Formats: sequence, C-alpha cells, structure tokens
Amino acid sequence: MGKSEIAVFDTTLRDGTQGTGINFTLKDKLEIAEKLDDFGIDYIEGGFPLASEKETAFFKEIQKLNLKHSKICAFGSTRKPGIHASQDAHINALLQAETPTVVVVGKSWDAHASEVLQTSLDENLNMIHDSITYLKSEGREIIFDLEHFFDGYLNNQAYALKVLQTASDAGADCLVLCDTNGGTLPQAVIVAINNLKTRNLAPLGVHFHNDTATAVASSILAVEAGAVHVQGTINGWGERVGNANLCAIIPNLILKMKKEVYCSTKLKDLTKLSRFTAEKANIIPEKNQAYVGETAFTHKAGQHADVLAKAEHLMEHMDSSLIGNSRKILLSELAGKSTIVRKLSKYGDFDKKSEIVSKLTETLKKKEMDGYEYEAAEASFDVIMRKALGKYTPLFELQNYHIESYKTMQSKSKTVGRLFLNVSGVEHMGAAVGEGPVDTLNASVRDALIPSFPFLKNIHLSDYRVRVLNPEEATAAKVRVFITFTDNNKTWDSVGVSENIIEASWEALLDAINFYYNNFILEE
Amino acid sequence: MGKSEIAVFDTTLRDGTQGTGINFTLKDKLEIAEKLDDFGIDYIEGGFPLASEKETAFFKEIQKLNLKHSKICAFGSTRKPGIHASQDAHINALLQAETPTVVVVGKSWDAHASEVLQTSLDENLNMIHDSITYLKSEGREIIFDLEHFFDGYLNNQAYALKVLQTASDAGADCLVLCDTNGGTLPQAVIVAINNLKTRNLAPLGVHFHNDTATAVASSILAVEAGAVHVQGTINGWGERVGNANLCAIIPNLILKMKKEVYCSTKLKDLTKLSRFTAEKANIIPEKNQAYVGETAFTHKAGQHADVLAKAEHLMEHMDSSLIGNSRKILLSELAGKSTIVRKLSKYGDFDKKSEIVSKLTETLKKKEMDGYEYEAAEASFDVIMRKALGKYTPLFELQNYHIESYKTMQSKSKTVGRLFLNVSGVEHMGAAVGEGPVDTLNASVRDALIPSFPFLKNIHLSDYRVRVLNPEEATAAKVRVFITFTDNNKTWDSVGVSENIIEASWEALLDAINFYYNNFILEE
Repeated sequence: MGKSEIAVFDTTLRDGTQGTGINFTLKDKLEIAEKLDDFGIDYIEGGFPLASEKETAFFKEIQKLNLKHSKICAFGSTRKPGIHASQDAHINALLQAETPTVVVVGKSWDAHASEVLQTSLDENLNMIHDSITYLKSEGREIIFDLEHFFDGYLNNQAYALKVLQTASDAGADCLVLCDTNGGTLPQAVIVAINNLKTRNLAPLGVHFHNDTATAVASSILAVEAGAVHVQGTINGWGERVGNANLCAIIPNLILKMKKEVYCSTKLKDLTKLSRFTAEKANIIPEKNQAYVGETAFTHKAGQHADVLAKAEHLMEHMDSSLIGNSRKILLSELAGKSTIVRKLSKYGDFDKKSEIVSKLTETLKKKEMDGYEYEAAEASFDVIMRKALGKYTPLFELQNYHIESYKTMQSKSKTVGRLFLNVSGVEHMGAAVGEGPVDTLNASVRDALIPSFPFLKNIHLSDYRVRVLNPEEATAAKVRVFITFTDNNKTWDSVGVSENIIEASWEALLDAINFYYNNFILEE
Repeated sequence: MGKSEIAVFDTTLRDGTQGTGINFTLKDKLEIAEKLDDFGIDYIEGGFPLASEKETAFFKEIQKLNLKHSKICAFGSTRKPGIHASQDAHINALLQAETPTVVVVGKSWDAHASEVLQTSLDENLNMIHDSITYLKSEGREIIFDLEHFFDGYLNNQAYALKVLQTASDAGADCLVLCDTNGGTLPQAVIVAINNLKTRNLAPLGVHFHNDTATAVASSILAVEAGAVHVQGTINGWGERVGNANLCAIIPNLILKMKKEVYCSTKLKDLTKLSRFTAEKANIIPEKNQAYVGETAFTHKAGQHADVLAKAEHLMEHMDSSLIGNSRKILLSELAGKSTIVRKLSKYGDFDKKSEIVSKLTETLKKKEMDGYEYEAAEASFDVIMRKALGKYTPLFELQNYHIESYKTMQSKSKTVGRLFLNVSGVEHMGAAVGEGPVDTLNASVRDALIPSFPFLKNIHLSDYRVRVLNPEEATAAKVRVFITFTDNNKTWDSVGVSENIIEASWEALLDAINFYYNNFILEE
C-alpha cells in the first residue's frame, strides 16, 4: 500500500450513530470495523467507552480481530474542572479501552466553556492541557477535537487560538477543527485554515457536519488549504443532517485532487462498503448519493445516452468502475454485464457476449425490477448462477406448509407449523413450535431433514431483516427479506421478495440452505 | 419586496425531471410553478417547448395563471449548423412558447462541438451568435447556458473564452457556466470565475450538478466570487446525483451570506415548498436534507439536549423557524431527563425532578434494555406518557387471534385470520385474508371495528420495518418492528418488540391505532 499524505478518519460508529434511526448492535459494529479496516481507513472511532456496556464490550472484542491497518480510537471529553486527569472516570475509561489512539474533545468556543461547562476560560485551558499530557504520558496518540471551533474562531478568535496552542504544546498529534453545529460555509473554512497555517501548530484536521449542504466541499477545501486529516462517516450519516460523507470525500481526494491516501488501492470497494454499511443499519441508502449511489451513473435514455455511445469521456466525469459503481442506462441492455462476468469467474471464464451472460443479465434485470437486490445477498445470486449453468441441485422440494399463530388474552403469542418436503421422491414431514412464522418454518425444515442430513445441525439462521419496498402501496406493498445464515465460521446472505412476508422469508430460507448444500456439501 | 442582488433560477420542471423517478403531470407542473412564484423565485424554467405536447401545453396554460413575479423560461439549443436561426424548428418553438425569457444552451467544450455536433468550432460560434441575436431581435431576455463549461475551460481555455465573448457580444443578458457532468470541484470554480471577472462580459451565472457532492458549495462560492445568477432545483433533484439544491442555496445566500435575494421575505415558506414539491413528485423527501429535512434540527444525544435547554444559540446554527422547519428532540438511550420534560410539555409543565419524570425515565430505560427504541416511534412513547399520566383509553382489548399461513407446491402462500376483540364489554369478531400475517391482523381488526368506528377507514398502515436485535441468539432472537400509519395528511410511528414477529407487530399495531384514537378522536 502507498504512503498516506492525508489521513482518513471514520466516525460512523460514534458520530454516525447520532443519526436518526442509526443503531448498530455490537456485532454490527465489529463487522463494520472489519470492513473499514479491509478498505484501508486510517482511523476508526469506536465510541465513548463509558457510555454503555455495548461500547465497553466493543473495545474488548475489537482487539481480538487483529485489524490490519486501521487504528481504533476511543472518544471522550477533557477531564472535569477542578480534578486531576488521573482522577477522572472518563479519562480512565479512555485508557482502559486500550486503543493506540485516543480522541479527546474540548471546548474552543469561549461561551461553551463558561456557559455549558460553567468553568473559567483558564481552567478550560488547564483541562485541555492536563488531559492531553496525561494520556500522552500513557503512550497514546492524541487526536484533539476542537468542538465548535469555527464559532469560537468567529466570536473570540484570541481564545480559540489559545486553545489550539495549548493543545499543540501539550503534545496533541493532530488538532481537529470541528464545525459541531454545521453552520459554517466553506469560504470561512478557507480563511481560517490559511490563517492557522502561519502558526507553529501540530498538524490540522477537520470535522464537518452537513447543515449547510457543504460538508464535503469544506472538507476538501480544508485539505487544499493545508489540513492533513479528514473526519467523516460512511454515507454521511450523523446527527441532524449528517456528517461529511467519506464516500464522496475519498474519491474527491484520490481521483480529483490526486492526493495520496492509504485506501487508494481499495477504491473500487467503495460502493460495496457504502451498501454493506447501509445493510447493517437496515437503511436503504440514498439512491442519488454522489459516487456510490445507485443512480450516480444512471442516464435516462435519449440524447445523453446517444452521446455516451459516441464518447463516454464527453458525458461522464469519471469511470464509475474505479469506485466499484456502474453505469446504468434506463431502458437499455448495457447494464451490469461486466459485473456478471466477474461473479461468474468462480465457475469459469465467460465472455461478456456469451449466451449465459446475456441470459443472466436478463434474469437479473427482471429480478431487480421485482425488488430483489443482490448486493447483500450473494447466496441468492449464486443460486441464480448455478441454475443458469445447470449446476444447481436443490436439497428438497416443498409439498406444502401450514403455519398457525394464535394468542389469547392470557397467553403470549404462539406459533406452530408443519410441512411436507419431497427429497428425491421421498416424503419428509416436519413439525415445530417456534417464535413467529419464520422461525417456525425454519425449525420445521430442520425437524424434517436433520435425521437424513445431519449437516443441517451445523448451520443456522443468524440474522433477519425486512423492508417494505413500496410503502405507497400500503398493505399490498411488497416486502424484501434478507436472511443471514452461519456455520459459526462463515456467513452467507440470501434475499426473498413477496407481498407476503412468510413467502419472502421462505424464498430466502430456501436459497440460504441450498447455497450451503450445493457449495459445501455436494462439492466438498 | 426587496431588490434582488442575486437571481434565483429554478429548473425543477426541466432539469429536475431528468432525475430517476421524477415525473410530473401537466397539472403538477402548473401547481409547482404557482408555488415557486408565490415563494418569489426569479426564473422558472418550464421545459423544452418541442419535446412533447405536455411541454407545449405548459407554456400555454402558464400564461393564464398570471404569475406575480417569476419569469417563465423556455429552454432549447442553439440553431442547427448551416441554417439561419429563423429556419430552425427549435428556435421557432422557443418563440412560440411566448415566454419573456429564453434559455439557449450551446457548446463551450470544443470536443463537444466537433465530436457531438460534428461541426467546426467556428460554425459553433456562429450558431451561438445567430441564435442569440435572432431571439434578442424578437424582444426576448436571453440566458445563455454554456454546457460543459468547466471541462471546456480546462481543455481549451481559449475556445471557451471565445464562446463567452461571442454570446456576450451577441447580447446575451446572462452567461451561465454549467458543470454538466458534475465533475468539477469548487476550487476550480473559484479560479475560473476570478479569471472571468476581469473580462468585459455580460453578468455571470452558474449551474451545478452534485456528482462530487459539492454543488451547493460551488454555487455559493461562485456567488462569493462574482456570479449573480444561480440555477438549481427544489430538493436538489436531477439527473444522476441531482442538481444544486435550491433549498440549501437560498438560505445560505440569505441567512449566511446576507445577500439580497427577492424571495427573502418568503423564506419561512421554504420547508413547505420543499415538501409540496416532493408530494407532487410522489417521492418521500430525504429526511436529512439540509435546512428543510425532517431531521435537520433533530437532536438525539442527552448532553446536546441538556445544552439546548440552557442556551439554544450554542447548539443550533440558526433558528429553524426562519425557514419554516422546527426542532425535534429524540428519545434514545443517550437522552436524559430534559428530553422527557420537553416531550411531556404537551400535557403540562413538569419539573425534571418530578415523580412522573423519574418514573418515565425508568420505564424508558427498561424498555430500551428490552430492545424498544422510541426515537422513530413517537406514537408508542405518547401511549407510554398517557398511561403514566392516566390519560390513556384503549379502543379495545384483545380476546384472541388466530392466523394461518399455508402454501402448497402449486399455490402461492395464503394467510387467513380471525380475532375477537372486546370493546367496553361487547365482543367484536373480525376475519380477513391478507398478504402475510401482519396485513391479515390489521385487516381483521378493521373488519371487526369499522362498522362501529368508521374513523378507522381514514387511517392505514403505510410502512413496516423489521430488525433482529440479537442475532447471536439465532432463532430465539428478538425482533423489533416499526410501523408507520397515516391519515393521508400526517404520519405517526410505533414500535413493538418480541421473539415473535407477529406479537411484535401486534403491539405496534395497537399503539398506532390507540395513539390516533386518543389524540384525534377522543380529544377532538
């Protein structure tokens, strides 16, 4: 991997979770951290160690994953007024998180020190100084976040500069200028950074929120002016309007500004990273997101598409494959073939013009029109490829299932089910009581088949996500179900779509079981 | 109304309709144009007069509306190579549209003139000159759009400058620098406009696309550098990633940069304008849109909420009412007592230390431990508050329900249900066939109660989201269900948690119905 001229700092797992509707389980957080590391993000802010048990557990568990490149950061405030840093519970929690890097956030807007912390401006400087020197003496790299820096700089420039100097002198490794309320325009950012450059300070970083719809621009203009560290989140999630979107900042830095960034060599995984994170958050990512959005390279049929056929470079600002996205021409046949060739490479070398590729393109287009999505359902796509290649052997066929759920005033809801499956002409019956219909279906399949196929004991359903696709259709709306299966070692995902959640779940269940059966039992 | 230092040009009805999924009927277009006029937008681009009958009809119908301020613009290309402007069908259509202002788009990137138009660079200049002088001689105001200007300026600066000079000399009233493929960063925009300022040209305008997530920033930085005309769309809709978002540009110009813009006095209608346009497009607007989004002034963290109570100006970059939006405080595991006091204010003034606040804090903590989450389920939290205050009257009680789903080899999955409800001691029976268990439960409740409670006809389920909370528990995992209900005017959300998806859905369904019943039926 290359040198890194600009450090990329991800705060999806900390500031990102301040976004409305963004909630991650511990497992989600660990999985996202692993993906961020694979991608080559330089710093991953994991959370406040003291906020909850989940946060504390994250810092324990992440150590076991042995990340390749990313430095995990614990985040917390400067010490409380009037005590020594070593006596402060939050500062100690930062140390106990045992991360190589600690992010310390402090006040740089005088009004915040006096009105919110209710301390003196001098004591605020002491708090910053002590917290940094204490954590440095324990061997930590320190990133110092200057909360509300741009407001402070506007309202009391002399004090904001004192804060910067204090943190720098105390040994902070990076001074991050934060626009915490998101109200600063890029022109003010450029002026501030140009002024700071002339001072003898630690390297500068920036952290923007998107309240004026300029967070990405402010981030890259700050780099242009001299900042060497940029904070943001995947998909721009965060409080209120969100944080600066790393999915736009990273390609802007690498492709447009030709900056050296560590993750350059992984840039083609950016679109996948965006969608994986969205899937973990159970949020449909904005289709028109810059670079990684589903429609970011979509052209409506007509004049533009015609010019595209003549000369791509005259119509598109870049080659979408550089970031793992792809061009879509609505109502045309040009989409997706190279992706399919890539997927098929598992089964051999196929030409873009081969019949199998055309056939799969058609299938995929039809399925996507129906609401299927295979980005996060590789098992289902594998089943489709196997069917097209004649390499698919289903473990069983359904004859029928029957699921009943009932509840009375006194009891909790109960679900029972029974089903008949056909395995090579032999009927297998299964029955189960489960927690809800999907669990009951799954348990009934296991009941029917485990005696003949003990491998099923080793795999199980580990996650389940449902989304209504066309809410405007109200109760006749389609639902899309994603299912994750695991053998406690690897995981695989499948998808089902139907107006009926049970039917959609059944479809995903079939794909998940048959993916494993075909790839790991038949072919082992 | 005030003078106008910067002209705001809306192209929602032309460039906006290039966005995926954006389609307006003629009636929609006329209604949107009226709202844009009410708001005080300076120019409204209506479409290509020759593109379709709908477009032609728009220009006829809009004249009858007698707009108060906005100038309607017809949009079309320069004349074809080798003919006189008066012979060109498109140019004539522009005249027949009878708009006071005409937007003429021409090539300023040499490669586009030679490779796309397949004409000489000189003839392209002639086409620009003739088209403008002819339309000027017919008394039209001319806005000249320089397609792909920034790419042209980068690749053949001398030719791009010739195009500018030609259009200016021909009498164009405004020269609009367009970044048609959206690939230009703001730093290049600033440099270009600073260079052009020294030339003797007609006033400059700009038109940006958001492919690098910097369209709003480039627009306002262009104004800072000297542009006096800004193009964009409501909600930033447009081809691929979209156009520059006027809903962010307008408040940035007025509130942050203190520019004189004609629509200043209507600024408080901006949020309504955004949502009205979204409704016409039948698109759910992005919740986290800057300024006008539903969550643009939403606060989640407890600490932030505390500071807000102390001093709003220290936490928010502006007063949200200036643009017609409003602050929201969300409930979450990170939130504190001050948030609860705010929520309770609907029912009276309660002190942070009051018993009811302590009780609700405890309930909330317990519920959140169990996996409930109220930030996106205000209806369920309202039910909790009402229960605590003794202000809750359930519409009905469940006696029992029974739901069956079955499928055979030949048929698709079917679900039928029946239930018995107790309404003030009277038994009501309901039965239904539905799409899946939740739809069936919902339909059965409606079947049981609509005869006695016709208000239920006016409300319906509009969205449904499911998440497994603790996937590590595999099939015994809890699921969390969010439900959205609507009366086609407002929406409200509720939550349910259980190991059984049907039970969780039932819980959410109860809260959604009872929230409406208590707040809008009993208390009306």
